[in-house]
Amino acid sequence: MRHLLDVCDLSVDELGALIKTAEDIAKDGKKYARALEGKKLATLFFEPSTRTRLSFEAAMIELGGSVIGFSEASSSSAAKGECVSDTVRVVSNYADIIAMRHPIEGAALAAAEKSPVPIINAGDGGHCHPTQTLADLLTIHREIGRLDDLTIGLCGDLLYGRTVHSLINAMLRYKNIRFVLISPPELRLPEYTQNALRRAGAEVLETSSLEEYMPILDVLYMTRVQRERFPSSEAYEAVKDCYRLTAAKLADAKKDMRVLHPLPRVNEIAKDVDDDPRAAYFRQTLNGKLMRMALLRYLLSDEALNADAKLPEGEQTSLKCPNNKCVTNCESDFVMMAARDEDGALKCRYCETKLDK
Amino acid sequence: MRHLLDVCDLSVDELGALIKTAEDIAKDGKKYARALEGKKLATLFFEPSTRTRLSFEAAMIELGGSVIGFSEASSSSAAKGECVSDTVRVVSNYADIIAMRHPIEGAALAAAEKSPVPIINAGDGGHCHPTQTLADLLTIHREIGRLDDLTIGLCGDLLYGRTVHSLINAMLRYKNIRFVLISPPELRLPEYTQNALRRAGAEVLETSSLEEYMPILDVLYMTRVQRERFPSSEAYEAVKDCYRLTAAKLADAKKDMRVLHPLPRVNEIAKDVDDDPRAAYFRQTLNGKLMRMALLRYLLSDEALNADAKLPEGEQTSLKCPNNKCVTNCESDFVMMAARDEDGALKCRYCETKLDK
Amino acid sequence: MRHLLDVCDLSVDELGALIKTAEDIAKDGKKYARALEGKKLATLFFEPSTRTRLSFEAAMIELGGSVIGFSEASSSSAAKGECVSDTVRVVSNYADIIAMRHPIEGAALAAAEKSPVPIINAGDGGHCHPTQTLADLLTIHREIGRLDDLTIGLCGDLLYGRTVHSLINAMLRYKNIRFVLISPPELRLPEYTQNALRRAGAEVLETSSLEEYMPILDVLYMTRVQRERFPSSEAYEAVKDCYRLTAAKLADAKKDMRVLHPLPRVNEIAKDVDDDPRAAYFRQTLNGKLMRMALLRYLLSDEALNADAKLPEGEQTSLKCPNNKCVTNCESDFVMMAARDEDGALKCRYCETKLDK
Repeated sequence: MRHLLDVCDLSVDELGALIKTAEDIAKDGKKYARALEGKKLATLFFEPSTRTRLSFEAAMIELGGSVIGFSEASSSSAAKGECVSDTVRVVSNYADIIAMRHPIEGAALAAAEKSPVPIINAGDGGHCHPTQTLADLLTIHREIGRLDDLTIGLCGDLLYGRTVHSLINAMLRYKNIRFVLISPPELRLPEYTQNALRRAGAEVLETSSLEEYMPILDVLYMTRVQRERFPSSEAYEAVKDCYRLTAAKLADAKKDMRVLHPLPRVNEIAKDVDDDPRAAYFRQTLNGKLMRMALLRYLLSDEALNADAKLPEGEQTSLKCPNNKCVTNCESDFVMMAARDEDGALKCRYCETKLDK
Repeated sequence: MRHLLDVCDLSVDELGALIKTAEDIAKDGKKYARALEGKKLATLFFEPSTRTRLSFEAAMIELGGSVIGFSEASSSSAAKGECVSDTVRVVSNYADIIAMRHPIEGAALAAAEKSPVPIINAGDGGHCHPTQTLADLLTIHREIGRLDDLTIGLCGDLLYGRTVHSLINAMLRYKNIRFVLISPPELRLPEYTQNALRRAGAEVLETSSLEEYMPILDVLYMTRVQRERFPSSEAYEAVKDCYRLTAAKLADAKKDMRVLHPLPRVNEIAKDVDDDPRAAYFRQTLNGKLMRMALLRYLLSDEALNADAKLPEGEQTSLKCPNNKCVTNCESDFVMMAARDEDGALKCRYCETKLDK
Repeated sequence: MRHLLDVCDLSVDELGALIKTAEDIAKDGKKYARALEGKKLATLFFEPSTRTRLSFEAAMIELGGSVIGFSEASSSSAAKGECVSDTVRVVSNYADIIAMRHPIEGAALAAAEKSPVPIINAGDGGHCHPTQTLADLLTIHREIGRLDDLTIGLCGDLLYGRTVHSLINAMLRYKNIRFVLISPPELRLPEYTQNALRRAGAEVLETSSLEEYMPILDVLYMTRVQRERFPSSEAYEAVKDCYRLTAAKLADAKKDMRVLHPLPRVNEIAKDVDDDPRAAYFRQTLNGKLMRMALLRYLLSDEALNADAKLPEGEQTSLKCPNNKCVTNCESDFVMMAARDEDGALKCRYCETKLDK
């Protein structure tokens, strides 16, 4: 049985196959209308995320399956102190597959360890949100026609932006990708992601100007710059308009460049961009549904159900995870495990925070 | 593509056709059990309204379709500051039609302007709630047998009662309707609705006594008199029992008169009325489902999908809408538009509040 | 038409038939996949209970039916002051059967009195939760192979534990059942349940030690000991570990003994028990779904729909129910009724609290 906890759980071949299926669904959805008939998806949303939840539900229904679930924690047993692995063991009696959104980092892995049915991580705090990245990849592929040989601008909050880190990790597996990092100095890409780029030998350009590299971009991935990330309101006010995309700022961009955004946007993309053919963010949400359809179908195929789970390796440790939003610190009686990153350093197996000795 | 934002968006002929369909469904629902197979309804309830939501969901399911959605704003992206037109553009990728409830006036029109799929207004603040009026009209037609030649009593809060205003506007399109307005002086019908009655040349009787005209009524439409509408608790206590319908007060009513109420009731209709055959309010909720079935089927028909949207005309204006619950004041970057009412005066295109120059 | 308000509403024969159906579904669920096609279940959860709600929804879907509903009161008309019998009269227009969870005791009976469709009590405050007991009975039957000749240990909060009282009442209808009551002195079984045991002539052993009778148990039913039940934190801390089941404490238990728990657990069962084959609590949740399937199918059968409702007898009384969580005290205009218990004493017809004269 396979789970999807991190986008890199999928091999490049598997990703290619999902994209192919999604594009086929886009062409002829009717063909798939009974693909998961009699199957049930549980959407366990311990925190609200309308867009993601509705996308999963629409995906399952369009495959002929059914959906049960909840949309926030107050409706769930978590309010009574139940651990997430108990919840999924119970729910696995009611559903064939689970899509889980949780505010706690590492919750999806903690669930997958005990779950008799496939777990899809629909976001675990600031850690991972792989189906968003699947939507991003399909959008690039459908809009540009390829996943290699691209110059990708990433704009806004590169420090905390989970979707940005995930997209970088996914794109590093493709050939000849150049990254343009566009952010205020306060919100530069964190060191460990910078390291990943360096290790991969990727070409990286860095700027605090949205306009500087506009003409060379194939993809511009926008994210929100949030007031609360800045030391003061003044610091925020000083930069916010710099990272707001407008029709005027698009003037120098390539004609076949594409603007992506994970949505919801607040004001980081002006409405005058919406009708530009380069604005791909609403189509991106359709692509999210298509990839979720492809994913649900794949994880419930005999091939995936009979495969190894491939959960991350771990070793017992007496170290405590320093991340207080990590599942190992949020649930009682949790057995802490450590994993090793590419440099051999110890990290928490659940939330991947570096462990200090 | 057609939307339903206000009950008067539908022509009298369209209303007649919906009533005919609803009555046919009442006779033989099985015939419609697969009418919308493969279609999805999204119920976007930015504020809770169980009755309306469940009625829509039951309607869609009985037509063979499926439902996704949310039941309050905390579960939605609105909590993150997304504008309603973005939400519907996203959700239109997940559903074929949207029923939207929103606390902000004019939100349904703001949504419809950008929506690639039909929008049904399931209540936009105090502004409109057209499917309630559809339920009222079907109830009168099924219970009395006609929509012309009626004396209709409207009792309770006629000042703020959205359902009352909407029912008046709908009934003004039928012949020979006499209105009996029954309310405390504090809660009389607002001037603009009084004007609409006058313009239409309708016969109007006004009273503060629930009993006075009881013997001549064909329909008695009850609404709740809320404590918070009065300047003091004493003012409320002084009148509240006058507008409470009891079995005793029905003694003088016609044998085939009918009592309607949009529900939920609190105590404005005593329980001893429930078993009277003239009490039609529980059957009214069934009629709400039947009309929603007829409406969903119509809006998703080729005829309606290929028709013009008929959104209200508007002209750009520098005036600001004085209604602080209007969508033009609640969303950022909103382009204010003005429309003209029957007298040629400027009103907000979204919430229809008069614009002062 | 039959309702399920209390587990003893079902005769022993009916219970046997439900168990037989549930076991047949477990063997060959496909056979039942269209049993309730075209039927709708409304899950009206006035307070959250994920597990129970999802179990009902999965059950209905696996029978080919559909589900509508809400998962907490803020989404419902109850927030506007609607009485529960109005809610079910409305919802009966949208659904064929209703599963209702309500924080108020007696709410399910108040609903059933006016409902045109079958009501299943999915928990009414501290009063009854019969489908949990159905899950318990099926679990004992599937795991042990019989419902007679058993020694059943009940551990934890026997004073407030609704599931414990309900299980005792259900098991008293089977032959040769011995009860072992395991609790701190503060949380002993209440007198009226003690009386029921005495009246039935059941063999009862009582202890404050979880280990004392471990070797003779066929079933150990665990419940949570909650801090808030104790006069002080110290009193709680002094006993809590005594009622925590661990792998070590199971050492002396029979090899084919079974541990049940209504879940969610917090820490009253250590995780090291989970992999013991005697741990039946996760399978118990599957059994809950199976029994709900059997129940939904039965209550919607022609046999049950044409049967008498068998609501409890009642006589009008001027006495007031002393239980302030009783529906008779929580809804306005409620006509109080009294019933008689086995000893002929007056009790509230709704919440079964003894009425003082």
